[in-house]
Amino acid sequence: MKEKIMALVNAETVDMAQFKALCSPMNTADIAEAFVELDKEKYIRFFRLLPKSMAADVFACLDAGEQELIAKELTDTEIGDIINHLFADDAVDFIEEMPANVVQWVLANTKPEKRAVINQLLQYPDGSAGSIMTTEYVNLYEDISVREAFDEIRSHGVNKETIYTCYVIRHDHLLTGIISAKTLMLAKSHERIGDLMDTNLVYVQTADDQEAVAALFKKHGLLAMPVVDKERRLVGIITVDDIVKIIEEETTEDFEKMNALAPSGEPYLKTSVFKLARNRIGWLLFLMLSATISGSIITGFEDAIAFLPALVAFIPMLMDTGGNAGCQSSTLIIRGMAVGEIRMTDTLRILWRELRIALLCGLALGVVNFARIYLMNGRNIMLAATVTLSLFVTVLMAKSIGCLLPIIAKKCRVDPAIMAAPLITTIVDGGVLAVYFSFAKLFFKI
Amino acid sequence: MKEKIMALVNAETVDMAQFKALCSPMNTADIAEAFVELDKEKYIRFFRLLPKSMAADVFACLDAGEQELIAKELTDTEIGDIINHLFADDAVDFIEEMPANVVQWVLANTKPEKRAVINQLLQYPDGSAGSIMTTEYVNLYEDISVREAFDEIRSHGVNKETIYTCYVIRHDHLLTGIISAKTLMLAKSHERIGDLMDTNLVYVQTADDQEAVAALFKKHGLLAMPVVDKERRLVGIITVDDIVKIIEEETTEDFEKMNALAPSGEPYLKTSVFKLARNRIGWLLFLMLSATISGSIITGFEDAIAFLPALVAFIPMLMDTGGNAGCQSSTLIIRGMAVGEIRMTDTLRILWRELRIALLCGLALGVVNFARIYLMNGRNIMLAATVTLSLFVTVLMAKSIGCLLPIIAKKCRVDPAIMAAPLITTIVDGGVLAVYFSFAKLFFKI
Repeated sequence: MKEKIMALVNAETVDMAQFKALCSPMNTADIAEAFVELDKEKYIRFFRLLPKSMAADVFACLDAGEQELIAKELTDTEIGDIINHLFADDAVDFIEEMPANVVQWVLANTKPEKRAVINQLLQYPDGSAGSIMTTEYVNLYEDISVREAFDEIRSHGVNKETIYTCYVIRHDHLLTGIISAKTLMLAKSHERIGDLMDTNLVYVQTADDQEAVAALFKKHGLLAMPVVDKERRLVGIITVDDIVKIIEEETTEDFEKMNALAPSGEPYLKTSVFKLARNRIGWLLFLMLSATISGSIITGFEDAIAFLPALVAFIPMLMDTGGNAGCQSSTLIIRGMAVGEIRMTDTLRILWRELRIALLCGLALGVVNFARIYLMNGRNIMLAATVTLSLFVTVLMAKSIGCLLPIIAKKCRVDPAIMAAPLITTIVDGGVLAVYFSFAKLFFKI
Repeated sequence: MKEKIMALVNAETVDMAQFKALCSPMNTADIAEAFVELDKEKYIRFFRLLPKSMAADVFACLDAGEQELIAKELTDTEIGDIINHLFADDAVDFIEEMPANVVQWVLANTKPEKRAVINQLLQYPDGSAGSIMTTEYVNLYEDISVREAFDEIRSHGVNKETIYTCYVIRHDHLLTGIISAKTLMLAKSHERIGDLMDTNLVYVQTADDQEAVAALFKKHGLLAMPVVDKERRLVGIITVDDIVKIIEEETTEDFEKMNALAPSGEPYLKTSVFKLARNRIGWLLFLMLSATISGSIITGFEDAIAFLPALVAFIPMLMDTGGNAGCQSSTLIIRGMAVGEIRMTDTLRILWRELRIALLCGLALGVVNFARIYLMNGRNIMLAATVTLSLFVTVLMAKSIGCLLPIIAKKCRVDPAIMAAPLITTIVDGGVLAVYFSFAKLFFKI
């Protein structure tokens, strides 16, 4: 399919009938995907060939870089047509990513009523419920009948993002209930909306965090959720398709924070090399300098190393095992808190579980480790015992630190995601080395 | 609200009128949440007080452990009522988690037609589209009118999971199109379904992977998707609420795999300590034994350590920086592949980007590191140069390995998520130590 489109677009003179026949059975998301493969001029040519209604849908599917590329080539009328066709939330997503001069030009060519909506939505802070909502919803008054509701939906519903949940308001715009299209379709035409509506409202305020909104969607299995202002007046709705995107963005941010990266909010291949490097250098520098502490602990035990140089060979194994054991625990706790399974009140219960797990892991690792060192290092029981005992304490210490630090971070209102592998490893390292060399001095009477 | 419910349930004799008044304006998800706080007997008592229709909805919101607890206390009629009220996909989710004897008893008390559906769904392999679909959908024939379609929806729609997308089939059950409730509501009553339906079909087969299904939902912003058999006959639908759960499950699995944990598929607090330990010991053992290689590299350079014991103090910093630099790269690549942004064809482009990023990071770290060692270690230029040069090569090596291994894993059909911090760190460690001591021998002519 993609190949056929490209062959057509690449041709000198485009056969419009063939082009339309080819595009009409395709989904806009598929057409948008075909775009990515084209070079810039082909891009614009292809885009201009699309029927008006489809062009806006395809535009909404593209990412910011591609949208900018196209926008810059369009005429005043063309960009106006697209913005007027877009849902307000998609228009805002696009405008937020554009440079100031493009924004001015785009808004100048937008219908006044649409421009007012866009300007209002642009005022909500990034990541708030207000910034992801749309104003295209169907609202019904309590005192109308089902028949009147259908008339309302038929006359205004065409350009709404969803008509499957309608919002019931009083004349002062106060949200009082919701009514689903299902209820409407199954009801008798003379019944009153106020009697049929569901008053079990799940709603959010414009300033609420988008992560909390996503959690509510998940908990209640919703398709759309109303957004209200401080006086509970309905100002917009959020639809489930945006929530799927937000969950993905928030997850990517967690992956980044948990792996010593400053969150970029942009796809990897579309971020500049300089920006990617800048997002990494901060953490690398901080962790490198923190590792100095481990270095000075080793320096403090130079007498032990001079006495028994073989001790050095076990440093990587002890450090790595400490890091791995700690990051296993912190990962489960961080993720458990992110999906709302683990709460602050569970702290003692978690510590008790982790200690028992550490005991089991420490024993299993200890047995294998003792056997290996004893057999491979000239049946040196003292050396095997020193390393094994250090390993056991390492696992215990790493798992306690790994499960406690994310919880402490949350208590201090720091994002627990930063208490992951890189930081845990660095913190555990120092302890591991101190324990190891202290045992060595004790056992070998250095 | 929760407090009030508990006060009522805890009372000797329950005031039913008060209980109903309290529960009716609450969402089932909130009621299910209130359950978690109660002890076992209170649980059952509370559950039995709920109106029949609400009981099934609340039951669907509970997790497997709580469902089992309740199921075991119910009578034959009670469990039958609940299963018959549940949507088929929720019933299957419940049954899959129960021990065999409970399953038999539950199915024996289920209506025959429901039992047939459940048995059919149970046959699809875990994680396939078939295993997450439901059979409660509205299907319409091509040759009926909009009025007839509404009659069909009114008479059969009440118990369907969604009526917002109806599936158009031929009389041999072949899927030919979809029609949204929106289209139906905006159409004239004499129009023919076959003329109004959308033939741009996005569908999956029963055997398709649930992760691929989730990606299609995200791409097309769908509320529901049809599932067909090999002959394109409609057999079920998947709804977006299940997709949100699947995305979360798949993400948790990635977090686990990327942090040396065997995926558990269960919430942390509900998994036994033994199972949690078992999920961790495998990776810990494997990585511990792999670290032996780093140990033997150190042993091979014992002469260098004996000559200059100060070298040992920089091992933690070099190892940690290598691990951190590598895991930054692998995280972005693994995540980019998971969300479908990075493809196999991008390999060379990625390597070229990572090399430039490594250059920038290596230079920044190198300058700070050189200054620190020079100033703090008695203005020893040779030592500072050895460590700094090793650090630079470490970053270059770690970033190359970190970006290439996930891609290679995918090429070999291994899950790229395992090529994350723990394994990358262990692999990079050996290289770092070999480079460091080789430079030391070269510079200090050992």
